[in-house]
Amino acid sequence: MSIKDDVVVRVAQRRDVPEMVALLTDDMLGQGREQATDLEPYYEAWDEIILDPNAEILVLDLDGRLVGMAQLNYARGLGRKGMRRCTIEAVRIASNLRSKGLGAILIENCIDLARARGCGLVQLTTDKQRTDAHRFYQRLGFDASHEGMKLYL
Amino acid sequence: MSIKDDVVVRVAQRRDVPEMVALLTDDMLGQGREQATDLEPYYEAWDEIILDPNAEILVLDLDGRLVGMAQLNYARGLGRKGMRRCTIEAVRIASNLRSKGLGAILIENCIDLARARGCGLVQLTTDKQRTDAHRFYQRLGFDASHEGMKLYL
Repeated sequence: MSIKDDVVVRVAQRRDVPEMVALLTDDMLGQGREQATDLEPYYEAWDEIILDPNAEILVLDLDGRLVGMAQLNYARGLGRKGMRRCTIEAVRIASNLRSKGLGAILIENCIDLARARGCGLVQLTTDKQRTDAHRFYQRLGFDASHEGMKLYL
Repeated sequence: MSIKDDVVVRVAQRRDVPEMVALLTDDMLGQGREQATDLEPYYEAWDEIILDPNAEILVLDLDGRLVGMAQLNYARGLGRKGMRRCTIEAVRIASNLRSKGLGAILIENCIDLARARGCGLVQLTTDKQRTDAHRFYQRLGFDASHEGMKLYL
């Protein structure tokens, strides 16, 4: 019996916030920038995300335990004849369950949702230090065609 | 008298759609993917963008002529303690007016708006073929820290 058969993809709920923050923290880059001891700013962010019709968070649920997450944001542009695009952010798989195919299930579900919303493009950026992630996304059909530029304010 | 003193940054209006499409087409990569002879899909996209409280388009207006544009999308995430981020898309400067400082005026205005909205990060992706653009954004403080991955549906 594979773990892939037991995992359920569902939309996140407010009660998932603590486990989502734990997933964000359980990460080589995330551990230095999260603050799991004070959940207030995360609940405040959640309450804004849930009201945004162009945002949603998917989670992987394994027997009631959260083992993965991804946030989707939809935005229409003028370019490419008014194309709608989906930007994926905050993709995480529990560190002890990586390389078991869960990430592919999660991202394939994101792609299906983006297609259902009429998007012509799914895009994401991934830190250049995450070389495993680049190969993972390329296997799923993504092309590393762009530079991802960030400016912190 | 510099052209930079004459240009005005303002929010786009519906009547700007034809000139914005012209800017999108006036581009080495854009010319193959736009269809300026049929503006209907662009107006349809415009009517969706204008209703989205998390989207806005800035334009550069030079004596009534559109010479630049950029779209901003704001989205809150759970990560980084619930940080709000701004994603910039569809940055264009009229081809005959490049390298005159107009792009910096446009992007600096985007950054100011993102800061006013409480964003902790401004991000964008730029095609790896646009090497001039990479240097331009780096001069403005952006770091090419990420791979920009795209999947067309």
